[in-house]
Amino acid sequence: MNLNRYLKSRKEIVEEELKKYFPEELYPEVLANSIRYSLLDGGKRVRPVLVLAVADLFNTPYEKVLPFACAIEMIHTYTLIHDDLPAMDNDDYRRGKLTNHKVYGDAIAILAGDALLTEAFRIMSEESLAKGIEPKKALKAIYEIAFRCGISGVVGGQVMDIISENRDIDMATIEYIHTHKTGALILASIRVGAILSRTTSKDIDRLTNYGKKIGLAFQIMDDILDIESSFEKLGKKTGADIEKKKNTYPSVIGLRESKELLNDLTEDAIDAISFYGERAKILKDFAIYLRDRQN
Amino acid sequence: MNLNRYLKSRKEIVEEELKKYFPEELYPEVLANSIRYSLLDGGKRVRPVLVLAVADLFNTPYEKVLPFACAIEMIHTYTLIHDDLPAMDNDDYRRGKLTNHKVYGDAIAILAGDALLTEAFRIMSEESLAKGIEPKKALKAIYEIAFRCGISGVVGGQVMDIISENRDIDMATIEYIHTHKTGALILASIRVGAILSRTTSKDIDRLTNYGKKIGLAFQIMDDILDIESSFEKLGKKTGADIEKKKNTYPSVIGLRESKELLNDLTEDAIDAISFYGERAKILKDFAIYLRDRQN
Repeated sequence: MNLNRYLKSRKEIVEEELKKYFPEELYPEVLANSIRYSLLDGGKRVRPVLVLAVADLFNTPYEKVLPFACAIEMIHTYTLIHDDLPAMDNDDYRRGKLTNHKVYGDAIAILAGDALLTEAFRIMSEESLAKGIEPKKALKAIYEIAFRCGISGVVGGQVMDIISENRDIDMATIEYIHTHKTGALILASIRVGAILSRTTSKDIDRLTNYGKKIGLAFQIMDDILDIESSFEKLGKKTGADIEKKKNTYPSVIGLRESKELLNDLTEDAIDAISFYGERAKILKDFAIYLRDRQN
Repeated sequence: MNLNRYLKSRKEIVEEELKKYFPEELYPEVLANSIRYSLLDGGKRVRPVLVLAVADLFNTPYEKVLPFACAIEMIHTYTLIHDDLPAMDNDDYRRGKLTNHKVYGDAIAILAGDALLTEAFRIMSEESLAKGIEPKKALKAIYEIAFRCGISGVVGGQVMDIISENRDIDMATIEYIHTHKTGALILASIRVGAILSRTTSKDIDRLTNYGKKIGLAFQIMDDILDIESSFEKLGKKTGADIEKKKNTYPSVIGLRESKELLNDLTEDAIDAISFYGERAKILKDFAIYLRDRQN
C-alpha cells in the first residue's frame, strides 16, 4: 500500500477510537472539553500509527494494540499541554490554534494533562482485561510505556531541556535531551507494537534499533523545521528555540551537520529492518516520510 | 496489636521501600531531589498503610501489595504537588515546610508530579512482573487505581473544586468534590488491598463500603481541621478554605452538622466490616483514628 493512503486510513482508525474514549457527555464538562480540544485536533498521529504499522508487520490484529496506540497518543498530548504552560515553554500556539492553557487557563490545562496521563493507564489495563489480551504481555507493554515516559524517559528529558536553556551544553547532553524528551515515546510506540505481537527477542532488537534511530531523527527534524519552516506550515511559532536559547542539534553541531546526521539516522533505521524486506515497506517509507516532512 | 504501634511499623515499611525506589544517584538530579523532597518528608502515609491493613486482614504477604501501596502514596504526593501550584491552590506551606514549587520552581514541580504519576505505573507493572504477582490481578489493581485517579476520580474532583470556588454550590456537588478529590484514592487503597488478596465479591463489597465511608469522613475532617486547628499542628496555613471561598462541608451544612456526619460515617465504616469481628480490629481502630486525628 502507498504510504500516504496507509497513514490516512490508520490515522482515521486511531481518531475514531480516541473519540469513543472521550464522548460528549463526559463529566466534568470543562475537563472533557479541554481534553478533546487538544486530543482531537488532528496532529500527525505519528506514534499510534507506528504502533499499528509494527502490528501489521507481524500480522497482529488491531484490537490487541489499538488501546495502547491510543494511550500513547494521549500521553503525547499530555506532554504537549504541560510543555506549553507558561511555567514551562510558555507557547501560545500549537497546530495553528491557541494552546490549551490559553483557552482553558493554567489550572484546567495542568489537570487535563494529568487526566490524559492517568486515563492512558486506565484504558490500557481496562481494555486488556476486556479484550482478553494476554495479561503478562499487557503488563510488559504498560511497563514499557511507563518506563519510557518517566524519570529515565520523557520527563527526565524535559527536565534537562528546561535546565539547559541559556547554557552551553555538550553533545552528550543534547543527545540525552533529544533521545529522552522525544525519542523515548517514539521508541516505546514501536516496542509496544512488537511486545504485543508474536515476536522473538531478535525481532524486538531490530525494531528497537529502528525506533532509536527514527526517534532521534524525528527531534533533529523538529529542530531544523523550527529554523527553516514558517508559522503557516508548522502551526506554531518558528524560531522559538533560538529566542528561548534552547539547545538544539543545529545550535550545537550546525545546520548542515544536523541534516547529514538526519540522513544517516534515517538510513540506519531502514538498515535495522532490512531483514524483513518488502514486508517492512511501510516502516521503511515511514522513516523517509519523517525525514522529509514539512511540519 | 495496638494501632499506634501498627501505624508506626507499617509506615516504616512503606518509607523504606519508597526510599529504595528513589535513590540518591537518580538522574536528573534536580528532578530526583524535588521528588524526594515531597515524597520522603513524612506525612501520615494513610493510604499505603490502609493497603497493608487490608492485606493483613486477608493474610496476604506484603511483597504482593507493597509496590501498589507505594504507587498510591506516589500518586497522592503528585496530587499534593500539583494542587499547591500557584495556578491551582497557590499554597506556600505543606507539612510544615515550603511547598515543592516554592523550592524548585513551578516547572520542576509540575514535572516532579508528572514523574511520580508515571513512575507509580512503572513500579506497579515492573514489580508485578518481577515478583510473579498474578498478572490478571495486577492488571485489575492497576485499572482500579487509574480509574479512581482520572476523570471520574481524583482529577474530576479537583476540577470541580477549582471551578466551584467563589460560587454557591449544592450538597450534591460538595459530595461529588469530596468523594472524588479525596475519597477516591482512599477507596482505591482499600479496594486494591482486597483485589490483590484471596477475596470473594462479598469481601470486596464490604471493604468498598468501608472505604467509601472513611474516604468521605477523611475529607470532612480535613475541612474541620482547616477551621479548628493551627499552623503548628497542621503544618500548613489554616483558614485557607474560607479565604479562598472554597466550598466545604462546614461552609455548606455547618460545623456542628459536619461533626455529626463525621461520626455517623465513622460508625457506618465500622459496621461495614463488623462481619470480620476482631480480625478487622486494625481497620476499625483506623476509622476512629482518622476521625479523632489532630492533623
